[in-house]
Formats: sequence, structure tokens, C-alpha cells
Amino acid sequence: MVEELKKPKVTNPDEIDVIEEAVLAAVEQDNFAEAAEALQQLHAPDQADVFEDLEPEDQDQILELLTPEVQADILEELEDEDTAEVASRQEPEDLARIIELMEPDKAADLLGDIDLAQAIEVLEEIQEPQEVRPLLAYPDDSAGGIMTSLPISLVESMTVDQAIQHIRAEFEPDDEDIYYLFVTNTEHQLVGVVSVRQLLLGKPQVLISQIMNKDVISIEATADQEEAARLMSRYDLLALPVIDDGQHLLGLITFDDSVEVLEDEATEDIYRLGGVPQGNPSDISVKSAVKNRLPWLSLNMLTAMGSATVLSLFESTLAQYAVLTAFLPIVAGMGGNAATQTLTVTVRGLALGEIESSEGWKTLARELTIGLIDGAALGVIVSLIAMVWKGSPLMGLVVGISVFLNLICAALAGVLVPVIMSKLRFDPALASPILFTPTTDAFGYLIYLTVATLFFIPFIT
Amino acid sequence: MVEELKKPKVTNPDEIDVIEEAVLAAVEQDNFAEAAEALQQLHAPDQADVFEDLEPEDQDQILELLTPEVQADILEELEDEDTAEVASRQEPEDLARIIELMEPDKAADLLGDIDLAQAIEVLEEIQEPQEVRPLLAYPDDSAGGIMTSLPISLVESMTVDQAIQHIRAEFEPDDEDIYYLFVTNTEHQLVGVVSVRQLLLGKPQVLISQIMNKDVISIEATADQEEAARLMSRYDLLALPVIDDGQHLLGLITFDDSVEVLEDEATEDIYRLGGVPQGNPSDISVKSAVKNRLPWLSLNMLTAMGSATVLSLFESTLAQYAVLTAFLPIVAGMGGNAATQTLTVTVRGLALGEIESSEGWKTLARELTIGLIDGAALGVIVSLIAMVWKGSPLMGLVVGISVFLNLICAALAGVLVPVIMSKLRFDPALASPILFTPTTDAFGYLIYLTVATLFFIPFIT
Repeated sequence: MVEELKKPKVTNPDEIDVIEEAVLAAVEQDNFAEAAEALQQLHAPDQADVFEDLEPEDQDQILELLTPEVQADILEELEDEDTAEVASRQEPEDLARIIELMEPDKAADLLGDIDLAQAIEVLEEIQEPQEVRPLLAYPDDSAGGIMTSLPISLVESMTVDQAIQHIRAEFEPDDEDIYYLFVTNTEHQLVGVVSVRQLLLGKPQVLISQIMNKDVISIEATADQEEAARLMSRYDLLALPVIDDGQHLLGLITFDDSVEVLEDEATEDIYRLGGVPQGNPSDISVKSAVKNRLPWLSLNMLTAMGSATVLSLFESTLAQYAVLTAFLPIVAGMGGNAATQTLTVTVRGLALGEIESSEGWKTLARELTIGLIDGAALGVIVSLIAMVWKGSPLMGLVVGISVFLNLICAALAGVLVPVIMSKLRFDPALASPILFTPTTDAFGYLIYLTVATLFFIPFIT
Repeated sequence: MVEELKKPKVTNPDEIDVIEEAVLAAVEQDNFAEAAEALQQLHAPDQADVFEDLEPEDQDQILELLTPEVQADILEELEDEDTAEVASRQEPEDLARIIELMEPDKAADLLGDIDLAQAIEVLEEIQEPQEVRPLLAYPDDSAGGIMTSLPISLVESMTVDQAIQHIRAEFEPDDEDIYYLFVTNTEHQLVGVVSVRQLLLGKPQVLISQIMNKDVISIEATADQEEAARLMSRYDLLALPVIDDGQHLLGLITFDDSVEVLEDEATEDIYRLGGVPQGNPSDISVKSAVKNRLPWLSLNMLTAMGSATVLSLFESTLAQYAVLTAFLPIVAGMGGNAATQTLTVTVRGLALGEIESSEGWKTLARELTIGLIDGAALGVIVSLIAMVWKGSPLMGLVVGISVFLNLICAALAGVLVPVIMSKLRFDPALASPILFTPTTDAFGYLIYLTVATLFFIPFIT
């Protein structure tokens, strides 16, 4: 009957906006009961979105009016730092009640993010600390760090009927949904997997070892979380069992955490390529954003000094033949942008596993070919433009040759830098165009002014 | 007993490499039986990886030796164009047998990619065309285009016991695994969802309508595939039911397809920001890569003409005060890179839904603040460098002021361009730095040379 009365939650973006505004308006008038009620019409991710926009005092006022289940949902969905902040303001006993209702992996993350003294107090208050405690042992970015504890597992010697009885007895309503059931031997080593459907359709007296699939993909707890996510995405897995170095089953990674890792990884690559080295900048404070971006801009300024030095070296040439100045940005820009294209393709190819760093020469050959073709085409176009604009075929030739040579250098650099970084086990996305193009610029200027000194100046004087 | 004998498939990357080489070596010696056997030690995505490296004749030789199940797996995992190519070479009856074993959404994609006449012949040979036919109606990039047909659905008036009998009777071993069961009324309109676990744990005589969850999130078939993927990622859904405008249940989208859409979307954004407008370039031919990248480089050259024009306008100034030339790349580079940072954060924020285009002014205020701070800091640093290097405090002042002003312009442009593009329903990632920085360069030169003309030249002459 409760189900019957429950209003379905809202998923339409416009309706979500209306409810979000209703919550904010109610809070404005200190009507927290109304705010809490409106909030419950939303799904947890949307609840968290409104919640994070509130002042700390208002957050606490509303939280008090919600059931521990909803409190747990909201804390699961907030950004990690926000979760830790809200949690730090709660009494240990209250926080323990909330944490018991959270997914064990999120609970472990929360305990790792708050003050150690508070975390210990909370752990003492938790009724089933064995669900969370083992998860605290692994770094946040390892497979063990994103695994959650197993609600249930089967032993290969059970019959289908015994397995179903076991599930009925052990499964608690607030456990995460189960889709696969992992099977161990008597030493708790992973030996197979059974789907719920296989149990549902299996004959009662058949042994689990007879219906289970032995071809089970697993990962060690110390492996990188990105490796786990790639494995799940590549083999379309809903859940990935996590084992220790003795094949013992420790926990599992669920698909939602794997999707989160993949999205975070893509975001990180995008930001790094864009010269924003860390974090999730569209949310963080202005202070953190400046701290995040200013060092790279400063580094960029230092590398740009290379270009400035090249131009300084040719200062008297440029003073005498000021017509050369106009084409500086074109030669440098073409090279920088061709390098950015090559770099982008190489970095993403490495991230997706399409390019292996051991086969870097294949990519190099390919990109050099593209550089030759693009360089020849652009060289011809730009030399025609220069010829017509400045009325000098010689000028056209110089600019054309420079663009052509610069595009070949760009292809070389755009492949070699990320591939070498990847071989040295740095993130290739750190070879951001922001740090990279000043170098290609300097090269471009050097090539252009050298070509001009050799082929232009001797012939016009 | 067959299960007992089956060797688990290989997932270790090194072992995969060994088997891949064994397949290639066997093919080299025309020993296709050995190649086919080695291939079967791999999971489907890895089988497809080796398979796509083979010559067409070799592909066909091996394919003949594989069971239709394995043939179907490989065709599902190949890139769409490769699948279509391999399929085009098969006889209609053979292809029909393979397609019957493919997931309906992949089968529909394949039929849409091959020759129409062949597709019609194949459809006539298929035993259950009703599984595939409705999927052909929707564009590839819509929710309907990535949905698959429902292996099974329940009616709300069934009891738990009847539902289980229904599943046992209807479910075929090659159907996709079921995790949720969607519930309809007698008019086939979606009214709820039940998990397999709820059935497993439910009392036999209870009605489905009493245990089902009415809070079911769904999407219309004509909606964009990215909207479906965002919904599934946001609400952690394993499967999303697809309905028509009359709430009738048409099919479902599974989590693996949603992960694929999210990854493709991130890749597309990364490429566009890197000036590579389309496709999956680390795989495509050199010819396609040139076709893909050259137009953007050419466009970039045209926009770079703006910078060249600005420099041409100040040609006599630069000839007279060649010392100014050295700082051109620094002023322009700082602005371009700060703009790239702002652009990256804004584009990704828009893609992830963290920034809404209606709230663009919030982002603008934020980024302007960051631009003011970064601009002031960099302005001071660069003016000190210029002062020491060129021994001229005046020069330092000019460069410093220019960098400061340029960073403010960069923040403005980096927010306004993508937000306006998003409002006009263009992909904001098309505002790639490659097309964008020539404009900030031109602005940078203009600001710098104007400031120099106003404050530097009058005081040193």
C-alpha cells in the first residue's frame, strides 16, 4: 500500500527545475519542512544538486527532517569534498546510522575523507564494520578503492535449491541489487559465476559447479581503477569481481562505478589537453581554479620565452625587412595547430588502447604521411596568398617552404612526445598543447626566418 | 560436461598478444583451421581486433570454419564499416543465420549499413524479422536507434508464479540477459518495473502490480541517444525502457550501449577541441584523416590572416622599434592559452550538464574573476622579465598591461563563444582552440601594438 500511494519521482528536466526552485524558495523562508518534502519528489542525484547549493546551516536543518535512507542517498551523490564537509558536522552516532545505509564503497570513501579521530569514533558505532573495514585498505584510485563488499556469494558444492535458500536467508532489502552471483571453492577462491536468471531457470538438484560459467573475468585489488573500468567496458561486464594475489574473492566493482571512472578519465584528458591540469574545475572555487591554471600559464610563459629569444636573434633582420613580420603568426600557427591535431589523436588513441606505445612507429609513419600531404597543400595555398598579397613570388616561396617544413616537424613532435611520455609512464595528456605549442612556435619562427635569410634576403638586396 | 572441458578464455593482455600472433602466423601459412582454433581462445572484442587486421579473403576463409554464434559475436564487435564490408561478402541465407544470433540492435545497424537490395533479401530469410524490423525505423543516433527488442515483458495482472512460468516458457538461451523486467498494462503501456531478484524472493500468489516499482524512468524513441546515455549514467540504470508518444513499450537500451555512447561523445569532444572535427581518426585511412583535418587547418589559415593583417598595419612601427617584435608571441600566447583553458572548462561543463547555457552569466562572472587574477599575476611577472631583459621599465609596463588586458578578453571569449553556440544548438566543442586562437592572437597583437603606440613610442622618441 505504501508503494500504491508513493508519487513517482520526477525525471523531466523542466519539472526538476520547478521543484529545485520550490526547495530554494522554502529554505529562503526558513520553511524547512516544506523544503524537505519538495526534495523527496526528486531522485537522489537531483536532490544532491539542490542540496549542494544550500548554506551549511540550511543543509543541516533539512537533513534532520529526512529519513536516514534519504540522508544516505544524498551523501552518496554529493561530490566527495561536499560529502566530507556535511559528514564532519554530524554527531558520530548519527553519522554511523547514515553510513550503515550507504553502499560500502561510498561509506569507505567518506570515512577516508573525514578527520581520522571522527572516523574511528564512527567505525566504533557501526553495527557491521566488517562490511566497510576491508575497503579502507586500498588507495582511492585502485580497483580495491572502488570495490564494494559482496552482499552474497555461493559455494560451488551447493545445489540450485540450496543456493536460492541461501540468497533468501542472507539477502537484506537494503543490499545492492545482485545481477551475477560469484562462486567460490571452500577456500573462498573465485572459481565461477552464475546469473540470477540461471538460478531462476535451473533445476533444483543440479550443482552450482555444473551450471556455473568458469570463464569469469576478475581483477586484482591493487590494479589501477582505470584498468578495471576498461576491462568492464571492453567485455560489457555489469560487475567485476576483485581478488587478492591468492585468488581469494574480496569484493566487486559495479558498473555505475566503472562508468564514473571512464567519465572522470575522459574529463581529465580533456582538461589536461586544454591546459587545466587537475580536478573538476567548473565546480571548484575561484581560488582553486587560479591555483590550478596559473602555474601552467606561467610555465607557458617560460616556454614562450623561447619564441621571444628566436625573434630577438633576428631583430635586425626583422627591422630591415619588416614585411617578414606579417607571416610570423601564419607559419607558427599552422605548425602549432597541426601539432595539436596529431597530439589529440595520439593521446586519445593511447587512452582508448587503440594505439599501443610499443607500436608508436606505426602511428609516426602514418602521421608523417598526413603531415607531408597537409604540408604540401597548405604550403601551396599560403605561398599563393603571400605572392598575391605582397606581390612577391619569392616571399610566397619562402612562406610556402616554411609551412611545409613546419608541418613535418609538427607531425614528428605530435606523435613522439605523447608516445615517449606514455613509455615513461607519465599521462600523455599532460603533453597539453598549452605547453607544447610555444615550442612548435619557436621552431616555426626559426625555420621561417632561416629560410628567409637563405633564400629571400640574398635575392632582394 | 561440455562446460567442464571448455578452456577459460584469455583476458591477460600479454597472453592475448601471444594468441593474436599465433592467429596471424597460422593465417600466413594458410593454416586456417589452426587460426580459427586459436581465435576461439579469445573473447569476442579481442577476436574482432585480430580479425580486422586480416585480408578479406583470409577473413572469409576463417569465418567459414567458425560456428554461427562466434560469427555473430565477431560481427557485433567489429567497427560498423568493417561489419558491413564482411557482411556484404556473405550469401543472404548465411548472413540471415548469423543475424538471427546477433543482438537485435546490432542486427538492425548491420542491415542499415549494407546494400538495400541485399538487406531486403536477408530480411526475407530471417525467421523472426519482427525482432529486427521495428528497430530499422529510427535514426542511428536516436534512442530508438540504439534500443534492442525486449526478450520478455510482464503484465501487471500476473502473479509472481505466473510471471516465473512466463519467463521459463518464453526465454530463449541466446536472448540477452535480463536484469529488470518491465511491466505493462493490457494496452502494452509501460507501468512499472520488477527486478529478477524481486521475483526470486517474492511470494508466488502476490500480483506483479503489488511488488512492481512504479517509479520507472523511460525515454521516447525519437529522443537523442546522448540524452538516453546521460539519463542512464545519472540514475545508474542498467536498462532504460524506450516508449512511443503513447507510452507504449517499444524496447530497451542496455548499459553497454549507453557506455559506448558516452565514450564516443567524450572522444568526439576531445577531437573537436583538438581541431579534428569527425570520426575515430586513429583508425581511419590517411586519405580520410587528411580530408578530416585539412579543411580546419585551411580555415585556421584564413583566420590567421587577421593576425597577419594587424601586423601588416603596424609594419612601419615594427620596422622602427624591432624590440617590440620579441614580445609578440608572449602576449598572444598567454591570451590564446588562457582562452583555451576557459573554453575547455566551459565546453566540458556544458557537455556534463554542470553548466546550463541559461546560467551562462554565472560562468562568465567566475571566469572573468579568474582572468583578472591570472592577468594581474602574469602581467606583473612578464613586465619584470621584459624590464630586466630589455633594460626598459617602459617596455615592461607596456607588455604587462597588454597581457592583463588580453587575459580579460580571453576569459570573455572563452565563455561567450561556447555558451552562445550551445544556445544556438551547435555543438560547443566545435569552438575548437584551433579556430579560436587565431582570433585571440589578432586581438592580442592589436592590444599590444596599440598600447605600445600610446605609451611606449611617444616616450622614447
